[in-house]
Amino acid sequence: MMTSRSSSHPIHPLFIKRWSPRAFDPVKLSDTDIHTMIEAARWAPSAYNVQPWRFIYCLRQDAEWDLYISLLNPFNAAWAKNASALVFLVSDTVFQDRNTPSAYNSFDAGAAWVQLALQATDMGYDAHAMAGILFDDVTEKLNIPDRYKVEIAIAIGQRTTPAALPPELQEREGPSPRKALSEITFKGAFPHE
Amino acid sequence: MMTSRSSSHPIHPLFIKRWSPRAFDPVKLSDTDIHTMIEAARWAPSAYNVQPWRFIYCLRQDAEWDLYISLLNPFNAAWAKNASALVFLVSDTVFQDRNTPSAYNSFDAGAAWVQLALQATDMGYDAHAMAGILFDDVTEKLNIPDRYKVEIAIAIGQRTTPAALPPELQEREGPSPRKALSEITFKGAFPHE
Repeated sequence: MMTSRSSSHPIHPLFIKRWSPRAFDPVKLSDTDIHTMIEAARWAPSAYNVQPWRFIYCLRQDAEWDLYISLLNPFNAAWAKNASALVFLVSDTVFQDRNTPSAYNSFDAGAAWVQLALQATDMGYDAHAMAGILFDDVTEKLNIPDRYKVEIAIAIGQRTTPAALPPELQEREGPSPRKALSEITFKGAFPHE
Repeated sequence: MMTSRSSSHPIHPLFIKRWSPRAFDPVKLSDTDIHTMIEAARWAPSAYNVQPWRFIYCLRQDAEWDLYISLLNPFNAAWAKNASALVFLVSDTVFQDRNTPSAYNSFDAGAAWVQLALQATDMGYDAHAMAGILFDDVTEKLNIPDRYKVEIAIAIGQRTTPAALPPELQEREGPSPRKALSEITFKGAFPHE
């Protein structure tokens, strides 16, 4: 499946180019490459500039790779094992220097995640976020302190042919469509439901 | 204040170029311009592609402008009144077609917000997100259904000289710094605290 994506407005091409494949070629990425992607995330905006995001990562050639894959649910582990890097994104739930709960840690982490993904796309790689992860195991095995919320895992790698996937995943491989602009954009007020 | 920002890694220039000014020149934007920015947000990734984001907006030349400004707290209203557009971003808290609570509505809305902001930057405008808004009033006056969470307001406009701001805000005007990459990036596991 290769859904066509076209925009009726002249947006930056990176937004259309970015999508979330599952078929990855098991090539090596370097620490420098991952650092460059996280560097893009680092410049994301956040409420009061608290920057609640933290990135914990592993490359496929690292000793911890099998452990990292075991922190995904079986569905995701089956394809993400061919990625080049796995990143866990966690967010600080405490508003720094104030000792009060943060209301924006997840919102801001979402901004950081997509900057990472866009940078990966710009470098010729692809990033795929996963909610299907073993949250308790991530917290325990990666030593995540209580005040941090485990948000997502991110598989990063080099896209390859869907033929590398099991048949049921081949059918789903391709850029996903979107709701129409008119379904998400309202002028003046929310329409009466 | 014009904090210098430099990246030790070769990231896409948009990420460094984007920042959140308060000094806006009260020029007009068109519906088409705002739609183009929301179009970029529309292509953001989301958990299971549910696309929980909704954008409710007003242009400064519209009849609702004063109402929109009154939905910000006084600190934000004082500068945002010179913006060209105000957008309220809300997120669907119910996982569509499943009738279960969504765990990622705010996270995904954060991704959509930053794609809007990057697109605004690419078009020569600036977007500034605000958490300081009158949430209950937004819900009531903009007719937001119960299942949607009001996330942020976004002021969009054309940046101008900080001299247009009150003295105390002039000092704060400029791109903000970031934590070091080493403070947010950990290989293998979270460091022991």
